[in-house]
Amino acid sequence: VPGVATAPLIGIVGGLGPLAGFDLARKICEETIATRDQDHLPVALLSYPHAVPDRSSYLLGEHDHNPALPIRDVIGQLEALGCRAVGVACHTAHAPAIWDVITAGLAQRGSGVTLLNMVVETARHVRATWPTVSRVGVLTTLGTQRAGVYMAAFAEYGLTVVELPEAVQAELVHASVYDPEFGIKAHANPVSEGAVRNLRLAVKQVRAAGAQVIVLACTELPLALPDTDVGGTPLVDATRVLARALIRAVAPERLRG
Amino acid sequence: VPGVATAPLIGIVGGLGPLAGFDLARKICEETIATRDQDHLPVALLSYPHAVPDRSSYLLGEHDHNPALPIRDVIGQLEALGCRAVGVACHTAHAPAIWDVITAGLAQRGSGVTLLNMVVETARHVRATWPTVSRVGVLTTLGTQRAGVYMAAFAEYGLTVVELPEAVQAELVHASVYDPEFGIKAHANPVSEGAVRNLRLAVKQVRAAGAQVIVLACTELPLALPDTDVGGTPLVDATRVLARALIRAVAPERLRG
Repeated sequence: VPGVATAPLIGIVGGLGPLAGFDLARKICEETIATRDQDHLPVALLSYPHAVPDRSSYLLGEHDHNPALPIRDVIGQLEALGCRAVGVACHTAHAPAIWDVITAGLAQRGSGVTLLNMVVETARHVRATWPTVSRVGVLTTLGTQRAGVYMAAFAEYGLTVVELPEAVQAELVHASVYDPEFGIKAHANPVSEGAVRNLRLAVKQVRAAGAQVIVLACTELPLALPDTDVGGTPLVDATRVLARALIRAVAPERLRG
Repeated sequence: VPGVATAPLIGIVGGLGPLAGFDLARKICEETIATRDQDHLPVALLSYPHAVPDRSSYLLGEHDHNPALPIRDVIGQLEALGCRAVGVACHTAHAPAIWDVITAGLAQRGSGVTLLNMVVETARHVRATWPTVSRVGVLTTLGTQRAGVYMAAFAEYGLTVVELPEAVQAELVHASVYDPEFGIKAHANPVSEGAVRNLRLAVKQVRAAGAQVIVLACTELPLALPDTDVGGTPLVDATRVLARALIRAVAPERLRG
């Protein structure tokens, strides 16, 4: 029997929101070749939602506590536990104003951890899976949209981002995540009918705007839209893409085909 | 903004199996009063499935590596992270041959952690929720059944355990968890039709044997039977009971009514 810290550990920065972190962990299991418990990969998940200020409102200038600082501390704890590859279960945390502060902090203390970038992994996945696609719809929160997180990463892979107009994204997507009455962060069991209806409408509209593939670019969205396509247009669950990238980073031979 | 380790942390020993640990974490979120990420309770979850030998086969004498030892080590890591209350997401680990070795180890090193006992919490929950019930059906794996885990704990609360005959429990419940072809540990997304059919049959039979309430006493079972009752007979999700007990232990004011 190996000791508790002998296998390469996958680390998850959870809590952003908490259900999204646990959803990422579940998807790591689902994407691992295993028939018994012992075949699964070791995972450490730290979910400290109270300690990480909201990412989207930081980008929108509504407060000045950079969530990068607690996220960086959590990555340090994961590394101390033995984690070799780490994922952050929040798209908005990948905006340069947050992400670059995290990676600079890791570099400064000589961290040896492999920090995977969910946005880059998603761009790579879309490019590899649909080589002829050029226009990719991105459903996300306002902070991520305004920061152009997907725009920059996708451009490097020859992909053009199709976004909804900001007012529509705000009403149909951002509110479906954040609204205290019907949003996913407040009501996830079950997700409210209002959130699902809004998100389906958003999918329709971004498809009508020319998207050939649609990325669910907020980790709360797959909780409301588990489907793999809508009317033939593929929906990309970026949380699952990150799960697969984490497995590939520590044990590629265990990745489901 | 509080530091990452300032709130009382809930610790989860996951990996037994891994999906069950993440399911417990999800249920902690679902049972917490929260409308935004920051309202949720901090959780540390360590899922080291490779390091913990199978609990049921240990109790059945098929190997002699007591899973108590790695479980105790994981609890030590959780305590070092600041966890105040810890749950172990596996019923079979609550058998005295395992559980008593865990608690003795914690006592020996003067651990200050509150280790919740899922079986005792479930007995207490059944007693408090259905004061007039006396016969409780228990669906579980062979190791847990033979060790009499539920029998002893329920007797203290005036509850009589109704079990299926061992051959039936083996075929309908144990196999639905462990079978490499159709069991939940090998196939959880989705759970196979065979496992669901077997488990529904087991529910029917234990009800016919006189059970007034039925406990899903293996953390894999709620993944296959999310229902709260079957034909009017309540199904108790012991994972959710443990989730609520963990919240009550660190922040009772945040427990959903």
